[in-house]
Amino acid sequence: MTPSRRTTGTDPFDPVPADRFTFGLWTVGNPGRDPFGAPVRARLSPARIVEKLAECGAMGVNLHDEDLVPFGSSAAQRDALVREFKRALADHGMVVPMATTNLFSHPVFKDGAFSANDPQVRAFALRKTLDAIDLGVELGATTYVFWGGREGSEADACRDPRLALQRLRDALDFLCGYVQDQGYDLRFALEAKPNEPRGDIYLPTTGHMLHFISTLQHADMVGVNPEVAHETMAGLSFAHGVAQAMEAGKLYHIDLNAQRIGRYDQDLRFGSEDVRQAFLLVRLLEGTLGGARYEGPRHFDAHAYRTEDEQGVWEFARGCMRTYKILHARAVAFDADPEVRALTAELSDRELDPLLAGFAREKVAKLRAAQIDVDAVAQRGLGYERLDQLMLEHLLGVRGA
Amino acid sequence: MTPSRRTTGTDPFDPVPADRFTFGLWTVGNPGRDPFGAPVRARLSPARIVEKLAECGAMGVNLHDEDLVPFGSSAAQRDALVREFKRALADHGMVVPMATTNLFSHPVFKDGAFSANDPQVRAFALRKTLDAIDLGVELGATTYVFWGGREGSEADACRDPRLALQRLRDALDFLCGYVQDQGYDLRFALEAKPNEPRGDIYLPTTGHMLHFISTLQHADMVGVNPEVAHETMAGLSFAHGVAQAMEAGKLYHIDLNAQRIGRYDQDLRFGSEDVRQAFLLVRLLEGTLGGARYEGPRHFDAHAYRTEDEQGVWEFARGCMRTYKILHARAVAFDADPEVRALTAELSDRELDPLLAGFAREKVAKLRAAQIDVDAVAQRGLGYERLDQLMLEHLLGVRGA
Amino acid sequence: MTPSRRTTGTDPFDPVPADRFTFGLWTVGNPGRDPFGAPVRARLSPARIVEKLAECGAMGVNLHDEDLVPFGSSAAQRDALVREFKRALADHGMVVPMATTNLFSHPVFKDGAFSANDPQVRAFALRKTLDAIDLGVELGATTYVFWGGREGSEADACRDPRLALQRLRDALDFLCGYVQDQGYDLRFALEAKPNEPRGDIYLPTTGHMLHFISTLQHADMVGVNPEVAHETMAGLSFAHGVAQAMEAGKLYHIDLNAQRIGRYDQDLRFGSEDVRQAFLLVRLLEGTLGGARYEGPRHFDAHAYRTEDEQGVWEFARGCMRTYKILHARAVAFDADPEVRALTAELSDRELDPLLAGFAREKVAKLRAAQIDVDAVAQRGLGYERLDQLMLEHLLGVRGA
Amino acid sequence: MTPSRRTTGTDPFDPVPADRFTFGLWTVGNPGRDPFGAPVRARLSPARIVEKLAECGAMGVNLHDEDLVPFGSSAAQRDALVREFKRALADHGMVVPMATTNLFSHPVFKDGAFSANDPQVRAFALRKTLDAIDLGVELGATTYVFWGGREGSEADACRDPRLALQRLRDALDFLCGYVQDQGYDLRFALEAKPNEPRGDIYLPTTGHMLHFISTLQHADMVGVNPEVAHETMAGLSFAHGVAQAMEAGKLYHIDLNAQRIGRYDQDLRFGSEDVRQAFLLVRLLEGTLGGARYEGPRHFDAHAYRTEDEQGVWEFARGCMRTYKILHARAVAFDADPEVRALTAELSDRELDPLLAGFAREKVAKLRAAQIDVDAVAQRGLGYERLDQLMLEHLLGVRGA
Repeated sequence: MTPSRRTTGTDPFDPVPADRFTFGLWTVGNPGRDPFGAPVRARLSPARIVEKLAECGAMGVNLHDEDLVPFGSSAAQRDALVREFKRALADHGMVVPMATTNLFSHPVFKDGAFSANDPQVRAFALRKTLDAIDLGVELGATTYVFWGGREGSEADACRDPRLALQRLRDALDFLCGYVQDQGYDLRFALEAKPNEPRGDIYLPTTGHMLHFISTLQHADMVGVNPEVAHETMAGLSFAHGVAQAMEAGKLYHIDLNAQRIGRYDQDLRFGSEDVRQAFLLVRLLEGTLGGARYEGPRHFDAHAYRTEDEQGVWEFARGCMRTYKILHARAVAFDADPEVRALTAELSDRELDPLLAGFAREKVAKLRAAQIDVDAVAQRGLGYERLDQLMLEHLLGVRGA
Repeated sequence: MTPSRRTTGTDPFDPVPADRFTFGLWTVGNPGRDPFGAPVRARLSPARIVEKLAECGAMGVNLHDEDLVPFGSSAAQRDALVREFKRALADHGMVVPMATTNLFSHPVFKDGAFSANDPQVRAFALRKTLDAIDLGVELGATTYVFWGGREGSEADACRDPRLALQRLRDALDFLCGYVQDQGYDLRFALEAKPNEPRGDIYLPTTGHMLHFISTLQHADMVGVNPEVAHETMAGLSFAHGVAQAMEAGKLYHIDLNAQRIGRYDQDLRFGSEDVRQAFLLVRLLEGTLGGARYEGPRHFDAHAYRTEDEQGVWEFARGCMRTYKILHARAVAFDADPEVRALTAELSDRELDPLLAGFAREKVAKLRAAQIDVDAVAQRGLGYERLDQLMLEHLLGVRGA
Repeated sequence: MTPSRRTTGTDPFDPVPADRFTFGLWTVGNPGRDPFGAPVRARLSPARIVEKLAECGAMGVNLHDEDLVPFGSSAAQRDALVREFKRALADHGMVVPMATTNLFSHPVFKDGAFSANDPQVRAFALRKTLDAIDLGVELGATTYVFWGGREGSEADACRDPRLALQRLRDALDFLCGYVQDQGYDLRFALEAKPNEPRGDIYLPTTGHMLHFISTLQHADMVGVNPEVAHETMAGLSFAHGVAQAMEAGKLYHIDLNAQRIGRYDQDLRFGSEDVRQAFLLVRLLEGTLGGARYEGPRHFDAHAYRTEDEQGVWEFARGCMRTYKILHARAVAFDADPEVRALTAELSDRELDPLLAGFAREKVAKLRAAQIDVDAVAQRGLGYERLDQLMLEHLLGVRGA
Repeated sequence: MTPSRRTTGTDPFDPVPADRFTFGLWTVGNPGRDPFGAPVRARLSPARIVEKLAECGAMGVNLHDEDLVPFGSSAAQRDALVREFKRALADHGMVVPMATTNLFSHPVFKDGAFSANDPQVRAFALRKTLDAIDLGVELGATTYVFWGGREGSEADACRDPRLALQRLRDALDFLCGYVQDQGYDLRFALEAKPNEPRGDIYLPTTGHMLHFISTLQHADMVGVNPEVAHETMAGLSFAHGVAQAMEAGKLYHIDLNAQRIGRYDQDLRFGSEDVRQAFLLVRLLEGTLGGARYEGPRHFDAHAYRTEDEQGVWEFARGCMRTYKILHARAVAFDADPEVRALTAELSDRELDPLLAGFAREKVAKLRAAQIDVDAVAQRGLGYERLDQLMLEHLLGVRGA
């Protein structure tokens, strides 16, 4: 039952805890149910998942409240489950860096949780989240994710979308207040998604989410948790969205997986679709192109195909991590390639550069007077086909490997 | 050559200036060139456009600098063109509420304008915009739009996307400084687009743009100009994006047209695709569902099919405006329908409502103690199929007409 | 529990059996489970569905084998269920025009049914279909639908796609043989879908399916069952796909619902998205633009939102049918509008027309010698903006209502 | 001006004529005009293109009539251009395997060519194609491509789509007749595209085209020319579409490039987007997975970014060819990998296999009686995550390189 090709550390792409890889309990634990089919795998216990992920080289696991404590459990049941889970974590040297709330499975959330029209639903969602935050903190989480899967609509007339935003803001302001009042060492990370399971979900992209955060009472403790699949569904550049979050100091967490554009939420093995975007992402997260590096866990929010048994699940998990490491190595080599560096070297202009940053009245006249040979500039070839081909050849392992 | 079915004011959907409709010079003036074909119509002079749009019932026209003053014109040529254009405006009682810069047609902008790697390009783009702002203000514009069509990439390794954002920010901060220094009565409206003509454009949606604005030095004078086609290309709900901008007080301008999801930029006649979203949009802009109303011009950024001659262009223009007015009437009737009002009446809960807005330590215990019958709430049907069908029947003119 | 606004025949858009509307048992019977949430409604018995649909004005119901006879039922159980169901049909004057096989829910089909790599799975799928055909015929069905939801892949290397086509062909040839051998009065209708639940499904569109049919042994008894949502997911014109099937005499059945482009399979209430395409479709099916009319049942393959209770389900069902009838009325009026007829009148050319149909050597010289004023033809405006606006105004009930 | 890194045959991925690579004159000759911008590069003469492509290692060039002979040229001009072009071909050992007609650029085709409503347009399109076929044959082409870029609609009411199909059929039947009558050694290859430049194009995918071909008078001389970008725009699996054409013996030509799903027609450097699909395609074309191999030219229908000068164009061309060769090598290694072979070995079942191919009455009872342990089969894991990860690691050059 151990991964069949487990190497003894000689393969440089085999994962180790120092790589800081994490998986959700719900990811490797996914039983393979889909809208058209029944589960194909038995549920794995949280303890089993912890043991096997440790064996595969992961650093930790993340969870929704209900992944560990089923809906409706008594306090005693909860405590027993938590105890057992903590023991498994300790036994295998695993941690829980992130936790979240399931606000989408139970029918009570069918019209949304924090944005539902019924105040009873909103109150219940808030209360469930308070408990789930306590649980996360108890398990050591320092990041708390919010994915509002049901915060949306199909019959759009049911709710003014501005009212939905106000309700979402009220909920997050309340919960930030709670965390601060409790003195928890916890940051929030908001996760956007354009649609599914709702026809349209409010705050559909990381961009919308970043703006929404800027309107919160405690904006300083709230960042984003972008997910590859979610931005990709809308055909957006994932790397660009992540870059905007990084530039704003708001990339608190990340959900790694793969997805084809314009489809149902696939949550495929990391890198298995659009390996080019995956490369651009890893390059950005690992800072090989310069600039700040992402410091949080490398979290996979994906699941194995429905064709797999448990053995296939662990192959899937190892595949996610290996591909990340391979892409990291490719990114290091690409950004160190002298030809790449030559093609991307920053141009500077002693006269113009000072005019371009920071307005001052006297710069206007200088700008208007500057000698710029527009036609000559326009005719200059930029070598981007060569640059992009170099990137592809690095990616394919033909160059610099 | 006058629109063939021009009524004498008896048709309630025929446009009048009080409706505040505007078109870009480049829209009705579009000669029908596309990536695979040559122009099919002669260019119309700005004066001709002003005359005909006035005849069709529009309030004004908007323009890029080059729509009026061709690239490379001398100062004398420019002044003559402006004089002639102002005379046409005066003759026909038309105004210019919005102006913008063409930073995408000339080859010098092939790698971007404000975000280009070459400082000469960035300086030239800035300078061109200073001149274009002066032109717009001279013509009476109070809104200045920025669409960064070339601010993007195909070979993504050519530029750190964070650097692109910083350059865009520098440019806008500079230009805000200029406007304030000049004492112009002018606000900026930023227009997002996910792709085309670049593979990926930075700041791809209204959400990303709203966040970017929050990072500007003079954020208070900068809002958004969402375009139906641009958000729709990515399959996002246009009404939700506009609602987020309205809630933030940032809807400064709007580009109305039509588009199918996941395609090239179509710029079709308003309402001619996804009439349901068009209805939701008009409802929001006109405030028939309650809440603030959009006060700016109703601007159309669309063009006639390539199958049309000039006569077809004016049919196209009248069609845009008529459809807007029909949808407005439908929205009024829908939101006044007693059955709709009953289905969307806000639920209140005397006990819970005060707990949900604003954190206070004592609310936590009350929330945890509140009686909520989760199963009963979950089982309640919400009548949204009925609500949505009512919306459709209003739209189709079967009910309430 | 009866539809609240049931009129007594005075509303011209209320459905009656002569309209030939049908629903699947699985559509109104859908309990509202989705990939992220539990069921929200109790399952309805087939008898209950029959009764209520009859009350709503439908003509019949369609079914998968397992909608009536759960997987693993004994022969006695099956017979009892069939007996009871037939009684309900008779009691309410309802018919079963179409039946199909569930080859996607059970885990055994996780790698496909007819195209699975394991011959045991292929044999089991074939056998299950033989039984389901017998069941359908016993219930009176004359159309048998095949939707191969699992016939696809994520890890594409698992199977040569040509081999998959060959296996699908083998299965259909076998089943055609069976139907003919049994002397059943039954035609097959194949249903395409591009993806979901598989990453890619073989034969992804109605076009691919039509070609595949042309390679079958008994192509004459096999046609297509296009579904609005399935072609729309890929952004294709549904009306064009249906038109190609009709022109080929292959439109044997149809699945009506609504869907936004580039999303998970939504199966929304007919007409509730892209009402323009829905109009074009109804116009084609009902033959109001001339040409052959579709003679089969108007079948809805959709389900109510998850926000609905049972009452909402029947509102949903009535909505599907009402919208179809409204669009039908709009199509009749549009195609009878004299201005529309003038704009779409077929052009003829006494000299050229005979040259264009059917090759003959002497036509070549005539064609080369014909006087064609290319520039004059190119400059002629075609009035399509006007035509399209007329269509929209008919749709919105402003004109001709 | 020669490619800067031209190796002297030591790099195994550098192209040579035996690789049978071809480019369109319009591809490397593309001057970089797009809907929002002016050309950035001077037009290259056909002779120059021939010379440079030969230098880059290509085997030949393909062309539209107007790529060589501008619209409206006299017979003498045409003959001079052809003579000069033939000399360039001879000088550089290049061939013209494919030719096609430009039926989309001139305004006369604004409403379609073969399907236009005006018989004068249809006659002119036919005549232009007769001349272009003569030209192609004169240059040695044995494949003639039809891309009906304007055969579609925006205002769909303008034409019954069934009438459009009939007109397209008439044109192709006529042209097949002409080719046969002339005794030309020429096959037709039809190219589908879902949209752009028209809102919807008739026969939008390779599947629709394959079916349409089956309705032609001379179906035996007509196949398809699938284009990566065109199927990918609709999010379909390109490899599956090509496989269906290959299985039907109808893959007569191919257009290689790259494209992101759900966008304007990008025509990017081959392999530069979705390298996974590109790998699956090359594997299929080269037959490394078994089965028939594609024997036609490997034709690139792509163009260089607008950021490039002429030097960049030749980098682009070399990149297309190099990537194809790298992927070919990866495919060979992948399909030879013993672990891959084990995972994809065909399962056989001595009892069941004979029952599955070809109907016979006695097989029905055997099938019904066969022992199949459904639960055991359902629980078997298929190892597809491992298989797919192996594919990715081959692709990235980590394994088997």
